[in-house]
Amino acid sequence: MWQATVLTLYPQMFPGPLGESLSGEGLARGLWQLDTHDIRAHGRGRHRAVDDTPAGGGAGMVLRADVLAAAIDAAAPADDPRPRLLMSPRGRPLDQPRVRALAAGPGAVIVCGRFEGVDERVIEGRGLEEVSIGDYVLSGGEIAAMVLMDACVRLLPGVMGKEASGKEESFEGGLLEYPHYTRPREWEGRAIPDVLLSGNHAAIARWRREEAERLTRARRPDLWQRRKT
Amino acid sequence: MWQATVLTLYPQMFPGPLGESLSGEGLARGLWQLDTHDIRAHGRGRHRAVDDTPAGGGAGMVLRADVLAAAIDAAAPADDPRPRLLMSPRGRPLDQPRVRALAAGPGAVIVCGRFEGVDERVIEGRGLEEVSIGDYVLSGGEIAAMVLMDACVRLLPGVMGKEASGKEESFEGGLLEYPHYTRPREWEGRAIPDVLLSGNHAAIARWRREEAERLTRARRPDLWQRRKT
Repeated sequence: MWQATVLTLYPQMFPGPLGESLSGEGLARGLWQLDTHDIRAHGRGRHRAVDDTPAGGGAGMVLRADVLAAAIDAAAPADDPRPRLLMSPRGRPLDQPRVRALAAGPGAVIVCGRFEGVDERVIEGRGLEEVSIGDYVLSGGEIAAMVLMDACVRLLPGVMGKEASGKEESFEGGLLEYPHYTRPREWEGRAIPDVLLSGNHAAIARWRREEAERLTRARRPDLWQRRKT
Repeated sequence: MWQATVLTLYPQMFPGPLGESLSGEGLARGLWQLDTHDIRAHGRGRHRAVDDTPAGGGAGMVLRADVLAAAIDAAAPADDPRPRLLMSPRGRPLDQPRVRALAAGPGAVIVCGRFEGVDERVIEGRGLEEVSIGDYVLSGGEIAAMVLMDACVRLLPGVMGKEASGKEESFEGGLLEYPHYTRPREWEGRAIPDVLLSGNHAAIARWRREEAERLTRARRPDLWQRRKT
């Protein structure tokens, strides 16, 4: 079974939104597992200190290598086959092919950073793979970890019901998704495009393909270029 | 005060992780506001239906334009100055400059999609701006909305304490962040780079700059190119 192990200073954040909807139902039905470990349990001294000032000076605090390594070693032994991910804006950007690969594997050990950053040596020493969910800065890795888990879990066998198709979606085929319409046929003077009501399946498929290509070219020339290469 | 208004089918997911840590303390101290509205309250009929089958056929369900428009109109009147965002993988990718602009404004009205998608006509008719947090597919817009709010809220005056600097971070200056180190000086045979312990502030600044540039070139040639243009 797909198993996520999360290391965090805020274990009470989990499962949070992942306890609802598709992922929550999957969790309740045993289609995936989530265990959360408090990094602070491995903190030093009476105050369970986990961070210290940055070598070389500067603002903020840095998560200590020894503390985080102890937390990782306790949560995931060295022979654990799962990838060890560190949610970090310095990482490789997450994309749908990577999500598919992670979902097809045994799960993930996910480290959530906080403060200014994590001591570089624990990234090297424990083989952490930095993963970024986008080019913006969050207050910590927790919500980023939820993004990664949600994206993976919805692809696990049995999690998605009829309410989502898992196909013809954005990024499948390298295109953004075509526009959707449903009842009513006219709303505030805006009509559903005729072709969608024509019953001509070939014409509908062509229209959707053309719209997906048009949207991708207009909104995401970067995706459009990557697709052609 | 910065105000986030969230429209969702899962209001119980909020504030969720945003109720903890920096954003949670900011919420408790009244540095920002969050109100959540249940789209289903505007559903049709006894079963409060919010979705219907896609025009033209296909898998999945589409959120109705009339239902979502009623929810938007109830939560944010036409003269509400805040941008109306729809979390969607078809949107413009969120980045740190956009986060800064949103954080400097009055807040945001954030619509969380679910199912296969949202009827295109409500996007046009209510002027929704589609925003993507990354090139992957989630089970809904809720966790994406949390990402957007967390990124904005940490930049609001008074939210960040000493524990985060708000400067010299990834994407400020178009570079990934340089490596961090803290005590102990040596850990598992790995030492803190000498320069960081030298006390030579100019040399430290130069080393950090070079490391940030090296990392950006190696990991994110796309960012490196964009920076030079």
